[in-house]
Amino acid sequence: MSALNPQRTVDELKELRALTADENGAQRVAWTPTWDKAREWMKSKVAGLPVEYERDQAGNVWVTLRGKDTSKELLMGGHIDSVPNGGWLDGCLNVMAGIEVLRRIAAEGTPPITIRVVDWADEEGARFGRSLVGSSAASGTMNPDEVKVLKDKDGITYAEAVAKYGLSVDTFLQAHDQIKNAKAYLELHIEQGPVLESLNLPLGVVLGTVGVERHGIRFNGQAAHSGSTPMNKRKDALAGVSKLHLEIREIANRHQGVCTVGKVTTLPGIVTSVVAQADMTLDQRHLDPHHLAAMYREAVEYSQKIAHEENITVEWTKLWDIHPIPFHPALIEMCDQAIMETAGVSHRLPSGPLHDAAEMGRIGIPTIMMFVQSLYGISHNKIEDTKEEHLLMCVSALDKLASKAIAWVAAQ
Amino acid sequence: MSALNPQRTVDELKELRALTADENGAQRVAWTPTWDKAREWMKSKVAGLPVEYERDQAGNVWVTLRGKDTSKELLMGGHIDSVPNGGWLDGCLNVMAGIEVLRRIAAEGTPPITIRVVDWADEEGARFGRSLVGSSAASGTMNPDEVKVLKDKDGITYAEAVAKYGLSVDTFLQAHDQIKNAKAYLELHIEQGPVLESLNLPLGVVLGTVGVERHGIRFNGQAAHSGSTPMNKRKDALAGVSKLHLEIREIANRHQGVCTVGKVTTLPGIVTSVVAQADMTLDQRHLDPHHLAAMYREAVEYSQKIAHEENITVEWTKLWDIHPIPFHPALIEMCDQAIMETAGVSHRLPSGPLHDAAEMGRIGIPTIMMFVQSLYGISHNKIEDTKEEHLLMCVSALDKLASKAIAWVAAQ
Repeated sequence: MSALNPQRTVDELKELRALTADENGAQRVAWTPTWDKAREWMKSKVAGLPVEYERDQAGNVWVTLRGKDTSKELLMGGHIDSVPNGGWLDGCLNVMAGIEVLRRIAAEGTPPITIRVVDWADEEGARFGRSLVGSSAASGTMNPDEVKVLKDKDGITYAEAVAKYGLSVDTFLQAHDQIKNAKAYLELHIEQGPVLESLNLPLGVVLGTVGVERHGIRFNGQAAHSGSTPMNKRKDALAGVSKLHLEIREIANRHQGVCTVGKVTTLPGIVTSVVAQADMTLDQRHLDPHHLAAMYREAVEYSQKIAHEENITVEWTKLWDIHPIPFHPALIEMCDQAIMETAGVSHRLPSGPLHDAAEMGRIGIPTIMMFVQSLYGISHNKIEDTKEEHLLMCVSALDKLASKAIAWVAAQ
Repeated sequence: MSALNPQRTVDELKELRALTADENGAQRVAWTPTWDKAREWMKSKVAGLPVEYERDQAGNVWVTLRGKDTSKELLMGGHIDSVPNGGWLDGCLNVMAGIEVLRRIAAEGTPPITIRVVDWADEEGARFGRSLVGSSAASGTMNPDEVKVLKDKDGITYAEAVAKYGLSVDTFLQAHDQIKNAKAYLELHIEQGPVLESLNLPLGVVLGTVGVERHGIRFNGQAAHSGSTPMNKRKDALAGVSKLHLEIREIANRHQGVCTVGKVTTLPGIVTSVVAQADMTLDQRHLDPHHLAAMYREAVEYSQKIAHEENITVEWTKLWDIHPIPFHPALIEMCDQAIMETAGVSHRLPSGPLHDAAEMGRIGIPTIMMFVQSLYGISHNKIEDTKEEHLLMCVSALDKLASKAIAWVAAQ
């Protein structure tokens, strides 16, 4: 009897790296020849299995092992596309581990429900600046009119790029048909952060993807000569930035979220003048919508307090936001058990980055993600890596999770 | 008997404004035709006086009223040059008030010592980026080799620009001969800051020009994803800037000096990344060299403390520095008395900006400056202004100060 072979997944990932990476890292950018090559290679890997292989109207690839009850489907998702100069694990780990689990299930005969592995199209958005394209087409949250006019750096539109694949953005949303029987969605991913490594843990249960509040904040004071203006006569716009930056770290800690000031600019920005205008960006993330809203509210209130203290003004401009997407409670428990059985220790954490799983979770498909430790917390870079022993463990844990989820769905 | 006529000074300043300003402000940039026009006009104003008019090898203009003892000279200095789009008072107030005082003295007969008004060349440095040119040539602190190669925005060198005036930078230092008999130097100037206005005072005694420590400070941390990196795993370079910026304000207040962060830059400077590298400028000024040194030392020490707290690194790069130049104690008292006799109230304050007086004071000529209130603390701008009643008072106070200084020098 053919058992799960996690080493095969590691070997296949190395094979894929040799095929699609250069000295700068992975080059599997969606809608490019190297991506095509990766998908052809992936297709060859499922050739001997009792599965159906198809591509939907949004370019997502589906590998389907029919079960006894085809009205219920378990999905395992990932993406074989990468950013330019990307890592060897981001996205494709999920696809290849899912295929290994599919092999194990197929070897045991017809499963009680249908099992599908999906390779989402253009998760990274590296070429057109729009991520989660294939999964948001399937979930139905994508607006084709917005996507089709996006241009790459050479001026080629999204519509033109997919036409070469016989696809039309106008019919992308028909991919929604693929998930009408989905009863659960599993996604394994490298953490892309430092939490599991710092705790010396191989695997973690993802509680959901965080919500984001992203704003630009401008403080206006008054330019004044650095030599002739006493400290108590100044309207120093930079004081708004410095005080708010330090406070958002306290806000993040109080709420157990994350808050980041990534960019500061100053005008006139010369050594001999008090800053007249200071701009900063603020990115706040939390898994809990109430905490996220509170973090935003507290930052706004504090900025107004600072402005009053410093005799300057403040204005906020929203850049972007998204609600938190919590994963399914039952699947969280199953994932935790699968990890415990594999590693003897588990940990629960939110996902800061978004993933295709968020698109499934937000439309109500019971969804869960499992993280495997990233070395140095680094991703989207050729030095992205995970210890081989952890890669072997994560394939086993995904397999155990799949078994639990199949039984759970079948029993519904 | 012809008494002092301060109203004439105000009228002449308005005449000069009409001659050399456009809708954007004063345009008397040194070594340009409008500056020449201003100097020709100034020459015409002293035509009827019993004085000698000459230009020295650095382009400074001297108007000399010989005294009974020609081995002792009292100097009153200013500059008729302006920044582009400048104000109507900066520099030329000193020249025209000095000439009015000269008229009053000349009308009373031969003074006990020689009295001279100097119009320093290129105080502002607006065209070539080097200020105090004429006065530093006279003081001997200028390096001609550094100045002559300076270029304006059209690529014209300093040497080429002054050649049109029959001058050579190589012989600028011969202007030092002009001050070999100088026993005291007086300079009246608009404050260019908000202190006197905020105290509702017309006039102030300047204690000296402050010393300056000017540095660039770089904090290095580590870039990290704003979503996947918990707060306690970050090395946020911007935290160095924010903490140090707030602390330098405390340092300035503790020492009664001024400290300014004028520019902040962030790398990678994107909304989704913790700041990996943050740069800031720091400008610290104090009249007392011990306090200045302490302010610098405390900032360095605090930056190292912050770097340790935040697990980041810090490096300092000196941009520029100058020692404080205290004015003469006896002249400070005389200036205070002259102001008391004129306005009934006086105030002592340091000068944050540098002035030609610093060049005289630094080589040991007994030096004093008097400030008259600036409206809104604004200078180097067409809205630069001073109440007319204050302009009238400052001419009277300068005249009284000149009388006291003449007696003081004569008695030596």
